[in-house]
Order: sequence, then structure tokens, then C-alpha cells
Amino acid sequence: MDANRDLMVDFRRTAVTIFHCAASPLSMVRSLIAAVLLATASPLASQVHPSPQVDPKVAALRDAALEGDEHAWDIVEGLTTEVGPRLAGTEAEGRAREWAVRKLKAMGFANVRVEPFDMPVWVRGHESAEILAPFPQPMVVAALGNSASTGPGGVTGEIVAFDSIDALRAAPNAMVRGKIIFVDHRMPANQDGSGYGQFGAPRRQGPTLASQKGALAIVVRSIGTDHHRNPHTGVMTFSDGAKPIPAGALSIPDAEQLVRILKRGQPVTMKLVLESRNLGTGQSGNVIAEVPGRDPSLPPILVGGHLDSWDQGTGAIDDGAGIAIAAAAAKRIMDAGRPLRTIRIVWFGAEEVGLFGGLDYRARHGKEPHHALIESDFGADKIWKVDSKLGEARKAEAEAIGKALAPLGIVTGSLAEADGSDIGPMLGDGLPGVALSQDGTRYFDIHHTPDDTLDKIDPAQLRQNVAAWTTVLAVMSGGIEEPKSRKRR
Amino acid sequence: MDANRDLMVDFRRTAVTIFHCAASPLSMVRSLIAAVLLATASPLASQVHPSPQVDPKVAALRDAALEGDEHAWDIVEGLTTEVGPRLAGTEAEGRAREWAVRKLKAMGFANVRVEPFDMPVWVRGHESAEILAPFPQPMVVAALGNSASTGPGGVTGEIVAFDSIDALRAAPNAMVRGKIIFVDHRMPANQDGSGYGQFGAPRRQGPTLASQKGALAIVVRSIGTDHHRNPHTGVMTFSDGAKPIPAGALSIPDAEQLVRILKRGQPVTMKLVLESRNLGTGQSGNVIAEVPGRDPSLPPILVGGHLDSWDQGTGAIDDGAGIAIAAAAAKRIMDAGRPLRTIRIVWFGAEEVGLFGGLDYRARHGKEPHHALIESDFGADKIWKVDSKLGEARKAEAEAIGKALAPLGIVTGSLAEADGSDIGPMLGDGLPGVALSQDGTRYFDIHHTPDDTLDKIDPAQLRQNVAAWTTVLAVMSGGIEEPKSRKRR
Repeated sequence: MDANRDLMVDFRRTAVTIFHCAASPLSMVRSLIAAVLLATASPLASQVHPSPQVDPKVAALRDAALEGDEHAWDIVEGLTTEVGPRLAGTEAEGRAREWAVRKLKAMGFANVRVEPFDMPVWVRGHESAEILAPFPQPMVVAALGNSASTGPGGVTGEIVAFDSIDALRAAPNAMVRGKIIFVDHRMPANQDGSGYGQFGAPRRQGPTLASQKGALAIVVRSIGTDHHRNPHTGVMTFSDGAKPIPAGALSIPDAEQLVRILKRGQPVTMKLVLESRNLGTGQSGNVIAEVPGRDPSLPPILVGGHLDSWDQGTGAIDDGAGIAIAAAAAKRIMDAGRPLRTIRIVWFGAEEVGLFGGLDYRARHGKEPHHALIESDFGADKIWKVDSKLGEARKAEAEAIGKALAPLGIVTGSLAEADGSDIGPMLGDGLPGVALSQDGTRYFDIHHTPDDTLDKIDPAQLRQNVAAWTTVLAVMSGGIEEPKSRKRR
Repeated sequence: MDANRDLMVDFRRTAVTIFHCAASPLSMVRSLIAAVLLATASPLASQVHPSPQVDPKVAALRDAALEGDEHAWDIVEGLTTEVGPRLAGTEAEGRAREWAVRKLKAMGFANVRVEPFDMPVWVRGHESAEILAPFPQPMVVAALGNSASTGPGGVTGEIVAFDSIDALRAAPNAMVRGKIIFVDHRMPANQDGSGYGQFGAPRRQGPTLASQKGALAIVVRSIGTDHHRNPHTGVMTFSDGAKPIPAGALSIPDAEQLVRILKRGQPVTMKLVLESRNLGTGQSGNVIAEVPGRDPSLPPILVGGHLDSWDQGTGAIDDGAGIAIAAAAAKRIMDAGRPLRTIRIVWFGAEEVGLFGGLDYRARHGKEPHHALIESDFGADKIWKVDSKLGEARKAEAEAIGKALAPLGIVTGSLAEADGSDIGPMLGDGLPGVALSQDGTRYFDIHHTPDDTLDKIDPAQLRQNVAAWTTVLAVMSGGIEEPKSRKRR
């Protein structure tokens, strides 16, 4: 724990900065991060001797990205502004693919193409919630992905509330039948994002359980950690033959209000309107581009994120930032020279609604060897940890990555596991991978809400992400051959 | 500035606490405040000798409120939960008056009554905004109070944008005619709330100016300091004979998005739907209650806030907290014994839409002498300053208030001015008053948005407010006669 204690000392040194910024919590956090980034960027100072275990070319690429990357900002600013929301399978996601092809070509990547696939399309309609009794008032609700429609007239029923998915599971059918079910939870905000799995159960399992017990509809406390009137949507699937019912998420202040109302002990009646629609089969696609390697026979390094977003926000942290970070890092390698291995950028389609893009890529290319799979899909706050699963034979490579990332304030975690959303099934199949973990403390404040907009991205932290990714690609590239002429497009 | 420097030292001592809470900006701020409250509560420690200039009975009432007041929380929790939004002149505001009468009677106050008055009623309808070209996407909008309706089909027009109200004022009519006007601004978050006057001009003057120049409609950047998809509504009036036009506020992330889109240089077309309605004359009222003084011939001390709220949130910080603080402080005095002077609680109606409650009270009682007018209408964050306007002859009373408040970390400001919303016109008429200023740094993050909900109130800071108000009432009461039996209802 000595390393942690050292970090504490650094933070204490920045405490005066923290106080000066106390006016704004967000700017306070940003100042803290900026101070840490400055501190960790100390190898740049010529009087401070860097570790001999890190290739100076790798260190130079890393530090240049930290100082000056603008590619990632340009991508996420452009996509969120010029396309905005881009729900999977809709015309908006189609516009996003066209935008992506133009952008990746303009950046100078090779082999830019779309691999299309079919998928079922669900869209949101008009939605509202209202307490009719005992204390009439409106509430803010959003349909969950794949919710059934209430029809324009809505449904009205008595609320039956459970404090957890386990409480709903234990309830007799008679308690649930014909009611509007409410499921609460206490998801915490953690740096590693843990909590989303366990506390996301009301959204993922609640609708099926409620349907099986005969409920009229279900509303859950949004799976999130904020206190704004912005409900968190997200996909769910009716499984085990359960009949689709209307299923929504209340914003967290509304869920807490509902609990206060229920605690008064009188029957609570809600009117719920969710005019969601299934549009049948539509088209999505993965957008792919490459930095061709000097040796095309070597397996490529796949770097990616997902192009689609939920419909309520503009998909800045989820996942405009991710595709931006992946492509910006690849661009920085390309601008430095030719890597030995090919770097393949994949901007997956239709991730949010069921990993359709990742599964399509797997079906087409999952049997081909890959040097590594890396995905960014957890916002753009500072990367704090690197995990990898490259196998025992490549332990030295994994350790070299950790050494090269340490000056960015990134700890080396496991050498035996990696994760990712679209790439998850392929990692499960045994393909090698690296995982660069962003700080998730505020990720679930914003995730899947209308608040997922560009202003939530801190440019300084975004640059730290690009620096980390550039570092990993520089180490894995097999060596970058600098151009004979220093002038490159 | 020495006093400030001392405060800095205190804050530095709390820096480790700050770091430990860095996970959540809000909890960070709360910990900071809690540390300061603990520090400032040091007179409670029996080994620390208090100032001889503060009456020990006053100090005891102050410190007891800081430690344990629950009345204010009970009021704001009850009103926001059991009534929720309560727009002036609507049936919901009527329910709020009934709730208020029940609550004030249950707390044991005397002479609980409603003074009703008529007023014009405006209500929000369905509303939406959408960029049609060049980058189709929805935006989040809220009608401003007194907006004209677009009708259900909405209006569609080209956006003409101005960076300030001055830029709109300078524009030739031909530039504005038939367009949808957008007015931007850069309102800062300041502790004293300054900025709302100057930077609120787009909302207050923009609609009239745009109408006079022939605009189709107007949208302004929300008058606020946050970055959430929650638009800030607020009242405006078409003056100088200007014809009402549709007028809305975009959320701040949407306003910034619109600026980014405009910067691309292509014509921008918006479809705006605001189905607002004027319902004609309706009824509101002021709810009044008293702690009768031992000498009914003496002028009363008026303590108040406003009972109505905007319709988007539940009116927790604006102004459930204010009426709660005023009544909780009066209750604490009443429970301690009988004050010499009467304390009159006024929960004003219809403040948000034009100070109708304050003006009605002024018309009925404004010529009667009052010992002081005090209003709370700026949230529930820590009170940091006390101003007063009691006149030269009562300088000693004003200074005694300052001395008694200092242990709460409250600085004494002006002895020549005080302010308040409903009480503002009467202070202008020359009635005496005291102003206890809350920290407004985060007030305009939430003000007039759907996010004005109970979770935004920090119970510890709310108690500091009640302690400050109790202190002021204790000093001004003319002396509290303790009951012969210590048992009181």
C-alpha cells in the first residue's frame, strides 16, 4: 500500500488548488485531475531522468499526445454536433455511419468500409408518468429499450413496491398481478464501475419477473448514481417466454419521491404512458478503417468503440469518446510512421441494444488471429488501470505496457484478464486483449440519460486517454518505421 | 482580509477530508460545509469562552437549532412530497394553501388564516424543439412564463442568433423579422448570486425586443449556471405594447450545441412547439400565522418566504426551504417562551409570476408599522452574510445581530440595506428589514428547473439557516419570557 500512500501525499499537495475551486464541484474535480496530470507528466521535464525500461520513442509519443492531442476532441465534438443522437437501426445511425466514413477517410486511414448487418429496431415514443393519488403530481420517466407500449391512453394501476430485485422475486404472484411494480435499489458510485452489474438487476431482470407474475407494468429506479431529473434508459429483454409489458425508469429524484409518498402508507395510483414501438428489422453496420502494417501477414491490433448511442443524449461519453480515443491513438501512430502490425479501427454499430455489431464482427472475423482487442466504452475520465490477457508467452509485452503507462498515473492490474463490451464475446472465445479502465466515479451519473452531452467531457482527461492508448499501440506496434521524408499527409 | 486568511487556514485543515470525498463532487462540498459548521460551532465546547457581547440565551437558542432542528426539514419534506409542484393560481397551489393551514395549525401557531387575492393564470402545455437542418436532432426546451402558444403544429423558422441582449437590441428589424431568435449569454455562478440581474436580461427583455422587431419566436440560453438537460423557466412580461410571441429557454447543453451548429456556417432551421395557455383570472392567497407577542401594541416582526413554485420541479429550494426556515425559527422561539413582540409568518402566494402575494400584503398591511421584514428565497445553502436596514437609531440592534451570528460563520455586511422578493416593494417604501444571504454558488444550477427537488437540500446547511434565523428573532424579540411550567405543547 506504499504506492497508495505516496499518491495521498501528492493529492495533499494539491489541496490548496482544490479549495480555490470549491465554487464548482465539477471544476474542483477537473483541477484535481489537471494537477495530477501535471504531476505525472514530470518525465517531460528534461532534468528528471525517465525509466530506462521505457523505449524513448514510446515515451515521446505518449507525452506528445498528453500535451497536444486534438484529434479525439475533433471526432467527439463533430459526431455529437453534426449527428447527435444515433439510436441503433434508425436513420440517425445511418447518418452517423456516413459521417464516420467521411471522417475516417479525411483523417487518412486506409480501407475505410462499412460491414452492414440486420437487427430488430425499437424506438421511443411519447412518455409520461403521473401520480394520481394520494398526492397528484407528474414524474419523469423513460421507457427501457424493448418496453411494450401502453398505447396512447396509458395504463393506470396501484403501485406495489420492492426494495430490490430479490424482494420482487420472492413476492407471491397475487401481490403483483394487475399492479404497476416499482423496484428500488441503492447503486453506489465506484471508481471501477462495480455496482452496475449487481444493481442493474432491476432493469435487466425486473421486467421479465414482473411480467411472469402478471404485472400490468413496471417502473424501476434509474440505474444510476446522480440526482437529476434525467432518467437512465437501457436495454432489457423479456426472456423465458415472458410477455412484453410496459417498462420504464423513473429519474432518481422521482424514485426517491415515490418512496417518500409510499411511506405515508396510503395506496398510491400511477398513470403511465410509454408509446414505444417495434419497427421490425432494420440495418446497422460496423465502420472499419486501418493503418496498414509493414507486414500484412501479422494479425492486426483491433481498437474500437461503438458508434451508436441511446436516443436521449448525444452519446458523448457513451460512446463518442470511445471511438474518438481509439481513432486518435491510431492516427498518432500513423502520423509517426508505419507500424509493423496493422492497426484496425472498428466503430461498432448497435452495441446499446444487444452487442449486434460485436457479434457481427465476431461472426465474420472472430476465427482470424488478432494481436489484441482493445475497446473504449466507459467515458473519457482519466484512465487509472491497465489489465491485459495476452497469455503467459507475452508476459514481457504486458509488463512493458505497464511500465510505459506508469508515468500517466496508471496502475498495472491483472495480466490474466481483460474486458470490453463489443469485444467481450471474442475475449471469451480466447482472443487476446488489453483493457484500459477509465475512472467511473461519475460515469453512471450520466450514462444513458439526456445528460450524455459534449460538455461532460474534460479535454484534459480525454488527452490522457489518448496518451494511454497511443502508448499501448506504440508498444504493441512491433516498431514504427519513420518516413524518409518527415513530411507526411 | 485577515479574517479571510484565517478561514483559508481552516479550509486547509479540512483538505484531507475533501480528498477522501473526491468520489462525489456534491458530497465533497457537503463535507467541506460540515467541517466548517463543526469548526464554527466551537462555542458549544464548554472550555471555549463565548463573547460576552452575545446574550447567553440567544447563543443557546442558536446552538440548539444548529444541533437539532428538524422542523424545517419536516416542512420542506412534507410540502414537496405531499403537494409537489404548485404553480401560482392553479388547483395545486390551492392544495398547497390547505396543506399550509393544516401544518401551521398543527405546529401550534395562532391566527392561522388565508388572505386570498385574484391574479392572471398562465400554464405550460406540451413543448418540444427540434433542429430540422442542417443536423436534425431534438433539443430540450421549456416555455417561459407568459409565453404565447405556437399552437399544436408549432412554428418553423430560421434561427438568427445574438451573443447578448445588447446585440439583439442593436439588430435591424429586417434581420429579425419572421425568424426564430436565439439569445446567448455567459452567466457566472457567484456566491452572492450576482449575475442573475445582468445575465437574466435575455429572458426578461428578449421576448419583448424580439416581438417589437417582428420575430416569429424566441429561445434563450437558460438563465442558469449548470450543465444539465433541464431548462430554466421563469417569468417575463411583454411590455410597451409588444404582441406576445412564443418564448422558450433551451437547456444550457442544448444552447451550447446550437452555438456549435451555428458555427458550422449553414442556415439552421428549428421547429418549436410551446402549447402554453392563459387561463384568465384565478385565485391565489397568502397564508399567515403568528406567535403572539406579550405586547400586542408593538409592531410585528414579519418572517416569510413564498408558497408557490414553478411547475417543473417540486419547489424545494425555491421556495419550500424558505418558508420552512422562517416557520422553523418562529417555532423555536415559541417553544422557548413568549416573545415581547409578535412574530408574523407569511407564506406568500404567486411570487414567481409577478410578486402578487407581496403586493397584496403591501396593499393590505403595508402602511402598518413592522419591526422588521425578513424573507428567505434563495435556497438552503449556508448563510454567509447578514445585511440590515433598521435605521441609524437601531444601530446597536443591528450590531447585536451581527455579533450573535458571527459564531455561525456569518459576516456582517451593510447596515444600510436589505432585500427580499415579496418584501422588496415594502422595503422600498421604507419599512425596516434584515437580509440573511445564503451561499448562491449552486443556486442557479437548479433554480426554476425540473431539478428543484428535495435531494438538493443539505440538512446540515438547512439547520445552519434555521440557527441564523432563530438568532435574529431571539435578538429582535424584545426578550422571551420562559413559561412557568417547562412543559409546553
